[in-house]
Amino acid sequence: MTEGSQKLIAGKIVRGETPLNLEMPFQQLEGFLTPTESFYVRTHFPIPSIDRDAWWVRVEGAVENPFAINYEQLLELQSVTVPVTLECAGNNRSFLDPKVKGVQWGLGAVGTAEWAGVPLSSLLNRARVKANACEVILEGADGGMLEDPKSPPGKLHFARSIPLEKAHADVLLAYKMNGGELPPQNGFPVRAIVPGWYAMASIKWLQRIIVMDEPFTGYYQTIDYAYWRRREEIAELTPLTEVQVKAQIAKPAEGETVPANSSVRVHGAAWTSDGEITKVELSTDGGSTWNETNLMGQPKPNAWRLWEFNWQTPAAPGNQTLIARATDSLGRTQPVLRDPDRGTYMINHLLPITVEVR
Amino acid sequence: MTEGSQKLIAGKIVRGETPLNLEMPFQQLEGFLTPTESFYVRTHFPIPSIDRDAWWVRVEGAVENPFAINYEQLLELQSVTVPVTLECAGNNRSFLDPKVKGVQWGLGAVGTAEWAGVPLSSLLNRARVKANACEVILEGADGGMLEDPKSPPGKLHFARSIPLEKAHADVLLAYKMNGGELPPQNGFPVRAIVPGWYAMASIKWLQRIIVMDEPFTGYYQTIDYAYWRRREEIAELTPLTEVQVKAQIAKPAEGETVPANSSVRVHGAAWTSDGEITKVELSTDGGSTWNETNLMGQPKPNAWRLWEFNWQTPAAPGNQTLIARATDSLGRTQPVLRDPDRGTYMINHLLPITVEVR
Repeated sequence: MTEGSQKLIAGKIVRGETPLNLEMPFQQLEGFLTPTESFYVRTHFPIPSIDRDAWWVRVEGAVENPFAINYEQLLELQSVTVPVTLECAGNNRSFLDPKVKGVQWGLGAVGTAEWAGVPLSSLLNRARVKANACEVILEGADGGMLEDPKSPPGKLHFARSIPLEKAHADVLLAYKMNGGELPPQNGFPVRAIVPGWYAMASIKWLQRIIVMDEPFTGYYQTIDYAYWRRREEIAELTPLTEVQVKAQIAKPAEGETVPANSSVRVHGAAWTSDGEITKVELSTDGGSTWNETNLMGQPKPNAWRLWEFNWQTPAAPGNQTLIARATDSLGRTQPVLRDPDRGTYMINHLLPITVEVR
Repeated sequence: MTEGSQKLIAGKIVRGETPLNLEMPFQQLEGFLTPTESFYVRTHFPIPSIDRDAWWVRVEGAVENPFAINYEQLLELQSVTVPVTLECAGNNRSFLDPKVKGVQWGLGAVGTAEWAGVPLSSLLNRARVKANACEVILEGADGGMLEDPKSPPGKLHFARSIPLEKAHADVLLAYKMNGGELPPQNGFPVRAIVPGWYAMASIKWLQRIIVMDEPFTGYYQTIDYAYWRRREEIAELTPLTEVQVKAQIAKPAEGETVPANSSVRVHGAAWTSDGEITKVELSTDGGSTWNETNLMGQPKPNAWRLWEFNWQTPAAPGNQTLIARATDSLGRTQPVLRDPDRGTYMINHLLPITVEVR
């Protein structure tokens, strides 16, 4: 199951087996939707085995009317179907220099699927959120013990909170991915989809929805999946939220050989959080000159945009450095250099790749 | 400089040299005030060397009138002098079983001094705190780099926040300890005193006072000096704040020999946060029977109360187990067993000691 030096499982690059972490070889990017079997897998604990017909989720906490709902009842509610790009907050981590701890993701801890499910707002409205509420915790069935800091007795479940406003706006409880049931490794039977946020917030194997009247300070947003934000010149640990604007090159891939004096299609994807991608530029000379690429299809909120460019390769053989750079409708673009306050996350500075013209 | 197997510096037990951590041998407890030279020392970084005449502190952030004040100007303001007990949040950690990481404090990371200084409220009033403010960060001049999580570039200073209400109530900027200047290791020239809270909040080598309109999530309250608090069955990392009710036995000490069939004075100290100590009980038979001890002096808010008991030792030689138990005016008493959610901090469960009757 290896291809060159890279170990593969079901065609995906293995970044960890216990727990299971798999990424899509990003050069396989083709259509707008990532096939379910190619979608990256990010787990922190053993994958929970959940009987769909025995599944239910509680809506509780700062609500007037706490209730539980099972799978069958969930499917009876009005649903929506939307394409959403999910990116792991540590995507591209293997490019950091010096190396940092954490799963060494390349380019493929990102993908776009069409998710069908029930808006979280339907459930919150039914539960009647109290006036003093501010956040909603989404808790998964996945959990275990932590060593540093040592977790308290009992299983610590993966959980994340989102502001009530965001929870009402566009969060989904998804039970379909690209038209089929969710695979076990992607959150079966029901997961959250939090559009525009790094995917740690899109809780898989959802088991509880807890409305809170005070901000949540759980491990996976206080210590893990946090970055250093500075206020008044003081660095604070701050939960990761929105995806940062980014373009990635799918083909040619790093180290690939392309013919000299030819037309070569360079293509990839670009995404951002609020707003939409308005421009992807490509440099084929290490950043000296930039060319605007062709954005394909129509923009869709919180989903990536594919792009392509016909590169007239030079006549002379040699290495060429390709760099893609995205800009969004809020005027944000990718930084040239890495901001070390971001620690091991939110990696969206320019990532040059080298190809050989021959 | 060793006494038995214990290394001493200036008569204090060495719990760490880099950074410097020293505790008072608790059996030396005598008067209500701990002599300055016996007071425990807790540092996280090298001790800052500060020129008193060049020192100043800024009051800034969510205030209408940010300003800086120097040492001379601070001394011109109205001051108060109060005894306050400071206890390290990890005091008694060496008694935990199984062992946990952190400085292995015995009984002596606690002490009471008379602190003279200016109420923080004077400075906050002069700065005119904005209506949306909620907290005050106190930042020390001590700082350095962290490895896990890796701190951002630049020095990370020791800093802690306190709610505005507490900041206004009784927090002091202290420049005298037991009538003299603060020693360098205790925060010279100016430190905060936050009565009733574990001493991590009483920032030494104070250099900034920053009013915030959003809760602070700095390292020393988000990761370090935090415990697991449960809401809705979910464990969250929560900053340590108030001292927990506790009594400690000073003499006889663990392993000490006392004469049979005699009157032996057992004494120690007890403290709590809000309210006052109303009762200290002592068991000399491992917790089967309890005797009320004599509380000495008058109760003072946020300072310990000394207590004593005349123990008629048994006629027969053998080991006896002594346990002290404090109760406060809010009806709180010490738990028998350790709550593991408290991690490496807030250790106030009953701690038996064994003495030999001979």
